[in-house]
Amino acid sequence: MKIGVIGGGQLGRMLALAGTPLGMNFAFLDPAPDACAAALGEHLRADYGDQDHLRQLADEVDLVTFEFESVPAETVAFLSQFVPVYPSAEALRIARDRLFEKSMFRDLGIPTPAFADVLSQADLDAAVARIGLPAVLKTRTLGYDGKGQKVLRQLEDVTGAFAELGSVPLLLEGFVPFTGEVSLVTVRGRDGEVACYPLVHNTHESGILRLSVASSNHPLQALAEDYARRVLEQLDYVGVLAFEFFEVEGGLKANEIAPRVHNSGHWTIEGAECSQFENHLRAVAGLPLGSTAKVGESAMVNFIGSVPPVAAVTALEDCHLHHYGKAFKAGRKVGHATLRSADAATLQTRIAALEALIQD
Amino acid sequence: MKIGVIGGGQLGRMLALAGTPLGMNFAFLDPAPDACAAALGEHLRADYGDQDHLRQLADEVDLVTFEFESVPAETVAFLSQFVPVYPSAEALRIARDRLFEKSMFRDLGIPTPAFADVLSQADLDAAVARIGLPAVLKTRTLGYDGKGQKVLRQLEDVTGAFAELGSVPLLLEGFVPFTGEVSLVTVRGRDGEVACYPLVHNTHESGILRLSVASSNHPLQALAEDYARRVLEQLDYVGVLAFEFFEVEGGLKANEIAPRVHNSGHWTIEGAECSQFENHLRAVAGLPLGSTAKVGESAMVNFIGSVPPVAAVTALEDCHLHHYGKAFKAGRKVGHATLRSADAATLQTRIAALEALIQD
Repeated sequence: MKIGVIGGGQLGRMLALAGTPLGMNFAFLDPAPDACAAALGEHLRADYGDQDHLRQLADEVDLVTFEFESVPAETVAFLSQFVPVYPSAEALRIARDRLFEKSMFRDLGIPTPAFADVLSQADLDAAVARIGLPAVLKTRTLGYDGKGQKVLRQLEDVTGAFAELGSVPLLLEGFVPFTGEVSLVTVRGRDGEVACYPLVHNTHESGILRLSVASSNHPLQALAEDYARRVLEQLDYVGVLAFEFFEVEGGLKANEIAPRVHNSGHWTIEGAECSQFENHLRAVAGLPLGSTAKVGESAMVNFIGSVPPVAAVTALEDCHLHHYGKAFKAGRKVGHATLRSADAATLQTRIAALEALIQD
Repeated sequence: MKIGVIGGGQLGRMLALAGTPLGMNFAFLDPAPDACAAALGEHLRADYGDQDHLRQLADEVDLVTFEFESVPAETVAFLSQFVPVYPSAEALRIARDRLFEKSMFRDLGIPTPAFADVLSQADLDAAVARIGLPAVLKTRTLGYDGKGQKVLRQLEDVTGAFAELGSVPLLLEGFVPFTGEVSLVTVRGRDGEVACYPLVHNTHESGILRLSVASSNHPLQALAEDYARRVLEQLDYVGVLAFEFFEVEGGLKANEIAPRVHNSGHWTIEGAECSQFENHLRAVAGLPLGSTAKVGESAMVNFIGSVPPVAAVTALEDCHLHHYGKAFKAGRKVGHATLRSADAATLQTRIAALEALIQD
């Protein structure tokens, strides 16, 4: 089976590493000449709107999937004429737009921060009057890793903020006094089978995920899965879907969804019986889902900007390096490492040893 | 770091799957147009004696390694002029010839079956008179998966056997009434660091490995490691070296060594903290070795001739498919699956379920 992937970054690369042992081949559509997934499959170097190359991809592959959600709607619609596309155009339409996403949460009875659609500075002023400060102003589309966001703490931050974020459609979100950030990586098969990984505790720095620690028997696991299932059913979703939640007063508020394999699920390569990458491929290919059970205690540390010397990372006990083969650049995710231990105390020691290698 | 691999079969493919996350790139030299490792790196399609392509490979890569031991000595010698080659020409010279191999065992005080060099039918007759029957007559080089062998049970089997095996240099080995076959996968770094995986129980059918089950606290583990260290030191070996032993009367007799990653070590991808493939690459690249500790209980089942339907294999609990992407052909290893369980009893149940899928 040949899988077409829109995007050829590290997520595509890890999909290919997981899918090759299933007998799958890969083709990546990505305009970047140095797309790091290209080492593991065919590289169609073209813009995401290039219909000639999209048609070529559709002709070559059995199905198409995505490694990022901001794929143009036209691309998805065009491909869908010729080849099965998972997740669906409708799922991508919702997930790529923060307004649609949060409206869906509200409609499904899933708690989410207060929010308001902002199409002008006047809208923003009205929204701030209603929701209050502090609040977070975000672009409705194309935001990631903290980009396209501004925290509004006082009224002077509000002045001119609409223009500052590019005078594009925005969403104002009420600030949530959360005690933690957790994510739930879920997968749904073509037959509706659903599986969920254990909740993951995430730590961000400057808006970028730094550390993910898989939980054991998290008291909010069942609640998170209940919310997730509502969304998966609503979207008739196929593939991996990741949910980011704020932990608040013993409950959860949904922050956002990502319709793809997710950075907070990278630990599953070593830390779960079947990884998020293999499970995404199983789902889109119509295969039975694999077990999401943990194998030991795991944590993942992102390498941002640069990867520490390989000899130093591999010298750490039970440390699994994932070098993305990308050029180093400040603020760019260029690798990660997963630590796996028999118990949580050992894991903490190893996280500290790994973090000591990171200097950026 | 770019690694050159002589051979582009499933072992090369699994080396690339293990090395890509370490930031390595791969080039495979293999004359076969459909070399299954080619999906994961550059494919130099040329004969193993093609000096132009060998030179090209040497110029492109940081070091060269092998996925099979019957590489021509001239190839190794030629490459060694331009680029580091691991394991060394001397290690390959010994390992590819059963006479040299068994002589080394004897010289190092490692028990091995009685053996005799056979260069003619007269040699064979004399060897049979000395060693007795039953015995096994094998080609000194190029044998694998039971090929190039003949079991001699009675005197009439001896008549004409030299010609029957091609009138090439042979080795006669005394039959060993073994109670089991075990293998030890070891790895030695460029700095002399040695690590050994747990002993593996192997079951062969028609000379081809069918099932490998990793042991726990095997009473002969220390003895096997002692024997292995003698060989590793003697050869100043770098990389993975696999040992096959016969279990006899509570001891071990060395059958053969393989100077490469080994089929009986495939379970380590999921079943050990660091796989034999990653450890081979760590060793040849001069990186610290990874842990050879087991992760749960594991067994590997080979798929010979064909791979069962992917949907059936992936439906089995905690079953990890490795499809080599090769054309199906009787007697050919085309894939394997690793089963991983928390306990040995569950593992046995899962082996039975997997074996029920195999119809060949």
